[in-house]
Amino acid sequence: MDVVTKKIKLSTKGDTDIINITAETASAVLNTGLKNGSVTIFVPGSTGGITTVEYEPGLVDDLKAFFEKIAPKSGAYQHNIKWQDGNGYSHVRASFLGPGITVPFIDNKMQLGRWQQIIFIDFDNRPRDREIIIQIIGE
Amino acid sequence: MDVVTKKIKLSTKGDTDIINITAETASAVLNTGLKNGSVTIFVPGSTGGITTVEYEPGLVDDLKAFFEKIAPKSGAYQHNIKWQDGNGYSHVRASFLGPGITVPFIDNKMQLGRWQQIIFIDFDNRPRDREIIIQIIGE
Amino acid sequence: MDVVTKKIKLSTKGDTDIINITAETASAVLNTGLKNGSVTIFVPGSTGGITTVEYEPGLVDDLKAFFEKIAPKSGAYQHNIKWQDGNGYSHVRASFLGPGITVPFIDNKMQLGRWQQIIFIDFDNRPRDREIIIQIIGE
Repeated sequence: MDVVTKKIKLSTKGDTDIINITAETASAVLNTGLKNGSVTIFVPGSTGGITTVEYEPGLVDDLKAFFEKIAPKSGAYQHNIKWQDGNGYSHVRASFLGPGITVPFIDNKMQLGRWQQIIFIDFDNRPRDREIIIQIIGE
Repeated sequence: MDVVTKKIKLSTKGDTDIINITAETASAVLNTGLKNGSVTIFVPGSTGGITTVEYEPGLVDDLKAFFEKIAPKSGAYQHNIKWQDGNGYSHVRASFLGPGITVPFIDNKMQLGRWQQIIFIDFDNRPRDREIIIQIIGE
Repeated sequence: MDVVTKKIKLSTKGDTDIINITAETASAVLNTGLKNGSVTIFVPGSTGGITTVEYEPGLVDDLKAFFEKIAPKSGAYQHNIKWQDGNGYSHVRASFLGPGITVPFIDNKMQLGRWQQIIFIDFDNRPRDREIIIQIIGE
């Protein structure tokens, strides 16, 4: 059993920017040479989230519309009143989506569905430089 | 430390079909003979999700009503316009719920609450054959 | 590779009580002496959830308002009709937030963002005594 960590650096546009990180994650798993195990994809930071989606422009728009509907940018947030940084909606979206997922791999290959892609969503209200943690535990 | 993988095969009715997979998961953990570790339950596919619930008919209905309220089947989805498959709502629900969870086990027993059950939700808009990945890492 | 389990005991006020458990989790990781790995934070029980947030009073209020908006306490829940315990909203909130998260650690330190804190949310409609599972796998 081994633990291997890799970091993915990203520059985002913010404002619910949805970025496909599947290729970088698959490559990190491949490079370990480990056969079986799991990979945890995690964003340090409280205005980002990780999930999976069929990554195509229609669904990218649908996800943005969904987040805007359930936690609107222009909503009344106590965070904005206290801190004046206008990203209360970013924090709320990030908290309920969650900061990471864990994906099993078998024979050195993540067990994703055919169209299922791993995405990082930057909910912050401005462009950000991000570092996503890819941590692989396996044998 | 060992990694053991088991797959659960399911035939679902689709349309937010909620299926209790606790017994199969507990049995997979038991059969490893591993004492302590964690089990990741993951669905390959972008229209399914995994979580836990007190599995009783009232809450199964309540969850369905909740998903219909926040991401309605009849909503306007770009995915539907582009692909004509009518399951935009399925993808959105799956993305925000998430494709998997990780549950710790101690003395070969998952640390679930008394009424807490692991469920797979098939959000797709048609019956599907599914394979859920159960991956156990422990010692 | 080792597996180490620690339990955090909490008394909550219930009703979407949001409790910062970062210090206890970091301390559990530190005490293992393990260098690299991941820690799973998991709540046994179907009316609690785990996520991360910038833990400040404004956002704590914003999260409570968000959960009340998307799964209102006074909503019509089949669970309440069947069981008369009035916590249908608690179960729905817990199921869609999810019962746990997994956080990577490097050099014995969790890879959280500067302001990112781990929280347990008790959605039940009454005060509860809880035990949160902290399970660390690493080397």
